[in-house]
Amino acid sequence: MGAGTGTPGPTADRFAADPAFAVHEGGKLAVRPTRPIETREDLALTYTPGVARVSSAIAAEPALARRFTWAPRVVAVVSDGTAVLGLGDIGPAAALPVMEGKACLFSEFAGLSAVPVVLSTTDVDAIVETVVAIAPSFGGINLEDISAPRCFEVEERLRERLDIPVMHDDQHGTAIVVLAALRNAAAVTGRGLGDLRVVVAGAGAAGVACTKILLEAGVGDIAVADSRGVLHTGREDLPPVKRWLAEHTNTDGHAGTMTGALAGADVYLGLSGGSVPEAAIASMAPGCIVFSLANPTPEVDPEMAARYAAVVATGRSDLPNQINNVLAFPGVFRGAIDAGATAITEEMKLAAAGAIAGVVGDDLAPGHVVPSPLDRRVATAVAEAVAACAREQGVIA
Amino acid sequence: MGAGTGTPGPTADRFAADPAFAVHEGGKLAVRPTRPIETREDLALTYTPGVARVSSAIAAEPALARRFTWAPRVVAVVSDGTAVLGLGDIGPAAALPVMEGKACLFSEFAGLSAVPVVLSTTDVDAIVETVVAIAPSFGGINLEDISAPRCFEVEERLRERLDIPVMHDDQHGTAIVVLAALRNAAAVTGRGLGDLRVVVAGAGAAGVACTKILLEAGVGDIAVADSRGVLHTGREDLPPVKRWLAEHTNTDGHAGTMTGALAGADVYLGLSGGSVPEAAIASMAPGCIVFSLANPTPEVDPEMAARYAAVVATGRSDLPNQINNVLAFPGVFRGAIDAGATAITEEMKLAAAGAIAGVVGDDLAPGHVVPSPLDRRVATAVAEAVAACAREQGVIA
Repeated sequence: MGAGTGTPGPTADRFAADPAFAVHEGGKLAVRPTRPIETREDLALTYTPGVARVSSAIAAEPALARRFTWAPRVVAVVSDGTAVLGLGDIGPAAALPVMEGKACLFSEFAGLSAVPVVLSTTDVDAIVETVVAIAPSFGGINLEDISAPRCFEVEERLRERLDIPVMHDDQHGTAIVVLAALRNAAAVTGRGLGDLRVVVAGAGAAGVACTKILLEAGVGDIAVADSRGVLHTGREDLPPVKRWLAEHTNTDGHAGTMTGALAGADVYLGLSGGSVPEAAIASMAPGCIVFSLANPTPEVDPEMAARYAAVVATGRSDLPNQINNVLAFPGVFRGAIDAGATAITEEMKLAAAGAIAGVVGDDLAPGHVVPSPLDRRVATAVAEAVAACAREQGVIA
Repeated sequence: MGAGTGTPGPTADRFAADPAFAVHEGGKLAVRPTRPIETREDLALTYTPGVARVSSAIAAEPALARRFTWAPRVVAVVSDGTAVLGLGDIGPAAALPVMEGKACLFSEFAGLSAVPVVLSTTDVDAIVETVVAIAPSFGGINLEDISAPRCFEVEERLRERLDIPVMHDDQHGTAIVVLAALRNAAAVTGRGLGDLRVVVAGAGAAGVACTKILLEAGVGDIAVADSRGVLHTGREDLPPVKRWLAEHTNTDGHAGTMTGALAGADVYLGLSGGSVPEAAIASMAPGCIVFSLANPTPEVDPEMAARYAAVVATGRSDLPNQINNVLAFPGVFRGAIDAGATAITEEMKLAAAGAIAGVVGDDLAPGHVVPSPLDRRVATAVAEAVAACAREQGVIA
């Protein structure tokens, strides 16, 4: 289908107009040696025969692998491509640019190496067995863009089987940043977390994890809604994870729609897509907080939200208060790895959220409840807090 | 167990005397972004929202993954740690430095990224299913240091299941370089390959693959020996792979020991370890060829060999004619990947051997039958020959 004669010029490239494609040309990652290999001596130390002495030493004393291999500082970014961004089940090849991007961020923000591992299977057993099989190659497992409810079982089983940090970022990365932002939003509006009445719209991976971390952080009352309305114990249609939520939330006994529950609420946390009518936002408590995280189109129009809410946050990079997982995952893994942690505990996640919120410091304002995603202080602060928590808890190999 | 007071000084490090350990400190590899991520714009193109446009395009048109992801240029170096160098079954953690070294060489010599994948399983089914599951992440699979006979089945089944290049380097990398060296050794001693009578000592991964490629290249007569003696069809103790060899070699009907078969032989190819008595080497044909590849101690003492043989080659970097797989695998994978090959065929391996032999050119001499492992021309020549062969054969996606 090329031009009739000669080689097509640059203008023939249908991707030339979008700089995102130029950034992806040839892929976004490279694996390179940390030291040059130029002489016979370099070759004899990096590879045979020198490498045999290092391998022998590790075989005799396995703990030496932490010092003399790269594995402890490499995170696998594992996805089956079933819930990629807002795109859904697009498969492993199409998911790969997202995983490469994640690996870029691990490197840029935490100095960690990360390797995208996209899978040709979506079977829970097969995913678990595959990750267990390759685990000796890595120091941490970042699960990514695996659809609910499979993501819950995959993460739980891998946490049981492995003694390295495992975290499903769509759940916990989001939850950590949401908690950090909400802590600061409550402070800037003169509330305590315990006083807040929160409506969580969405009971997928992020909704479940956000609700759990908000409960752990002591948020007073939470109503969680899926597409059929607020979760309550009277509903017969709830799978196990949603049933757990129904039993642990909604102390006010809401039984109707999400928008109904918004009347008088302090916080809207949108993790569902769709759109929320203005009347519902108008019915919230005065000086309310609206976190509308669907991307690229927030559930609540940010301009409209600003007419009612004291604090508005979105997932968008072109607006204030961007809730971006990059504030959490690089520092969380870096801290866990630095401490030699065998898991990422709930306490470590809470510590991470506290560190993110703390970086804002004296700059706290309604339009600045979270740091910029490019703020290099964040990953360091998170890593230090997470490592300290791991050491304090003794979650260490 | 530290020193009584203060921090131990550098002299306290028991690994300080061996530079191989310094080279391995913190591991030998890093994954890094190919482009900087410094601005909000960089972030928005490398990650969300820009990456979503690239993922969507690949989802709609899968062939675009070849252009816009890194996978086609990444080789997985997969090992279960059961047959590592001469160290044997030392497990995945201790095998990792070898796989990291291999990945360094892929980068240095072929400009390819490579990721070590060491496995917590040694079960053939589990290895195959694991590699199939992670295969969408990679453009090629280099199997490494998996013990025989499992390595044969693992490779065969992965070649059937996958449409990317799969090669067990301990078999075919060695075989390619041995054939290249033997071709030149025959030329420099005035023989044709068809005239040679060869004794292969060792019927493991390398012995099997070397024998097969020598048969394909037209070597006249080959006797293969394992630890119990020469393989022949009258032996009742042969597993399937050795039975195949017995049926396709040993046209002279040798039935005794390896050293017995050496009488009058043109070539000794040692791939077994152990040691060969001087009398056996002395019994070989005048101007014979001795390739003694056990590392670090060759089966035949090189000085002793030189008293009888016209050409001596070893695996050692401090002697002439080093038979080193690095002459083969970087260029083989680079050529296969450049051509978009779906497999590495026998013809592509023969083409690689021809290219390696050809680089020696006018410098051919008894002490120079293969290029130096550091000769940068080799990988380029091999890649071009392999890619041309793949295109000619049409082994292309």
